[in-house]
Amino acid sequence: MALIVQKFGGTSVGTVERIQQVAEKVKKFRENGDDIVVVVSAMSGETNRLIELAKQVSDDQPVPRELDVMISTGEQVTIALLAMALIKRGVPAVSYTGNQVRILTDNSHTKARILQIDDAKIRADLKAGRVVVVAGFQGVDEQGNITTLGRGGSDTTGVALAAALKADECQIYTDVDGVYTTDPRVVPKAQRLDKITFEEMLEMASLGSKVLQIRSVEFAGKYNVPLRVLHSFQEGPGTLITLDEEESMEQPIISGIAFNRDEAKLTIRGVPDIPGVAFKILGPISAANIEVDMIVQNVAHDNTTDFTFTVHRNDYQAAMAVLENTARELGAREVIGDTNIAKVSIVGVGMRSHAGVASRMFEALAKETINIQMISTSEIKVSVVIEEKYLELAVRALHTAFDLDAPARQAE
Amino acid sequence: MALIVQKFGGTSVGTVERIQQVAEKVKKFRENGDDIVVVVSAMSGETNRLIELAKQVSDDQPVPRELDVMISTGEQVTIALLAMALIKRGVPAVSYTGNQVRILTDNSHTKARILQIDDAKIRADLKAGRVVVVAGFQGVDEQGNITTLGRGGSDTTGVALAAALKADECQIYTDVDGVYTTDPRVVPKAQRLDKITFEEMLEMASLGSKVLQIRSVEFAGKYNVPLRVLHSFQEGPGTLITLDEEESMEQPIISGIAFNRDEAKLTIRGVPDIPGVAFKILGPISAANIEVDMIVQNVAHDNTTDFTFTVHRNDYQAAMAVLENTARELGAREVIGDTNIAKVSIVGVGMRSHAGVASRMFEALAKETINIQMISTSEIKVSVVIEEKYLELAVRALHTAFDLDAPARQAE
Repeated sequence: MALIVQKFGGTSVGTVERIQQVAEKVKKFRENGDDIVVVVSAMSGETNRLIELAKQVSDDQPVPRELDVMISTGEQVTIALLAMALIKRGVPAVSYTGNQVRILTDNSHTKARILQIDDAKIRADLKAGRVVVVAGFQGVDEQGNITTLGRGGSDTTGVALAAALKADECQIYTDVDGVYTTDPRVVPKAQRLDKITFEEMLEMASLGSKVLQIRSVEFAGKYNVPLRVLHSFQEGPGTLITLDEEESMEQPIISGIAFNRDEAKLTIRGVPDIPGVAFKILGPISAANIEVDMIVQNVAHDNTTDFTFTVHRNDYQAAMAVLENTARELGAREVIGDTNIAKVSIVGVGMRSHAGVASRMFEALAKETINIQMISTSEIKVSVVIEEKYLELAVRALHTAFDLDAPARQAE
Repeated sequence: MALIVQKFGGTSVGTVERIQQVAEKVKKFRENGDDIVVVVSAMSGETNRLIELAKQVSDDQPVPRELDVMISTGEQVTIALLAMALIKRGVPAVSYTGNQVRILTDNSHTKARILQIDDAKIRADLKAGRVVVVAGFQGVDEQGNITTLGRGGSDTTGVALAAALKADECQIYTDVDGVYTTDPRVVPKAQRLDKITFEEMLEMASLGSKVLQIRSVEFAGKYNVPLRVLHSFQEGPGTLITLDEEESMEQPIISGIAFNRDEAKLTIRGVPDIPGVAFKILGPISAANIEVDMIVQNVAHDNTTDFTFTVHRNDYQAAMAVLENTARELGAREVIGDTNIAKVSIVGVGMRSHAGVASRMFEALAKETINIQMISTSEIKVSVVIEEKYLELAVRALHTAFDLDAPARQAE
């Protein structure tokens, strides 16, 4: 008998019919003898509907405290509906809001962080044989104000509850059946991974694989809560995300290939190569609240240097304006920009013990005559920036080069 | 500077525009220097929408505890929207759910009763210059479960808050501009009353004038909270409901004329006139959960008696079946029923000090040759049952006979 926390997102509880399907699924787990805590989001569309209402009375700038009072009602409706659907099926159940549990957070309205969870109520209910249905995404601060955790916060609630309850597993139900080696829409031979480490998942998530929220993965890693990504309405083992790195001898070097097209590149050329020049360039960017991702500074020659970095495409215009100003101040030669870029990354803890992974990547790209514009590496990741039009080709080439392609299947 | 509790119902906050109008109104009171606590209902239609959802997952029988979790979200949305609208207008405001205030109730889900209100938070906010917006209709029990007070509960919340805060007045905003001497649709000369006593209002309400919920009037009377009924979006003094009976020398004997068409009459004839026969007849009716309103037992002759009572029309068929059974058991002669009846009542605390009010009523009806089928009296009310088709005629005749007609106005 295991204690399992199951999280169902907005799409999984988007209609009355789906809520009933979720109730059926939970009922089956109960019949297997498992103790179940369910975390649910608002029905899909509901949070946006509420935010829209709030904007209408507030000239688009709702007061955060009141916005939280309002949008937290979305999950409150879902917990009640799911508890009703369970009870109707003969499964004893009880619902709790974040305030009732109580999920204590700081007071950063609309992006609060969980500080502590009082698990006494839930343990008592589980002991009494009840399924406990908890509202995701919300909590309460020391003063009793309702808070929300920000988008994707329901995953975090699930993981935090699993940590507090020392659950055997936190299952995140989604609209995909697991984590893939890469996006199957780009590489039809992409495979579902049985297992992946927290670190790898973090890199994959931050690089644009949107299966899980980064914060919930960090949280799960920190408290070593086994996370499993599963499909809400299809059977299957999903993908397990754990600390464990070494179990399998045949672990591939690379677990997956991530990519995104959301970035833009800016270069300032002919900057005097003086100490502190990087700060002089990036300080104003950061002051403008623009996040920088990759940074490359070339070796200086003629006492000047070139400096390149990437930002989110939405920030491109703003960053360009800031940089042109900086260029004038520093007496730089010119500023150039490029939005037709894509970032491709290989991710895998296997890199730690295998040399030559980066060069194998570069070789695969060279074979396809794809030019690499920037390179950045971490312990378990190598990222390159290439021209956007080569993105799919690059991902497919790397998928094959690192032996990730699924074995050929019989014609279906 | 007064402390005023203002309650706005579902229609008054039914759209974003109306919420903004309410915010404007509250702002004006603030500018006059009053301290304001606002109680709001769910936006009109919202509670029904939520109940409909609940029924869909529960075969029409939602678990009361979970239903309360769900429908309490209706007011939670409104309090946040109104607080936002106030803050946008430069009026400091804060919203509270029933749980946050905290409005402690018993644990009778969907029809809970308020036990206690903790006014510390509200007083602190008022002192800090904030308008406090409280969710009507909801509370929390000792165990922290969310409860609701049942339909119309927002009026009760308003009155209970006014009592706890010793407010100078509890203003109930509605879609009418006050309490009238009778329904203006029936008597165009009906007049708005400046003042009415709690007792009179209770009789008017229980007799079918639906301006206020009976429970909230009882509550206001018990704690002597001055209640004022006003129109949400029109200026005017409304009607004040207080304990005060004697202030004006010119107080009319009758304050108003109430009526309803919701009842049906049942008569059992030729019942043996033995002790306990009334209980033998009404016991089974009550056991069938049918409420009886008026009761008349005729003087016995030949050792048998006739017994007549009225029930709600919806209960007529069920009551008839029970009564026919009783008639067989008691050996009564026959059972007859009539649904074409109406009840007309004159209400006024002035009756206490004026003799002959009932006979003046009977005289006015006799003049119109309206036959009286049943009579029932209380200290401040006389009710008669008449044939339904004479209802409007009777009400107009009584309105004139008791000098309630508005003075003739110039053509508008």
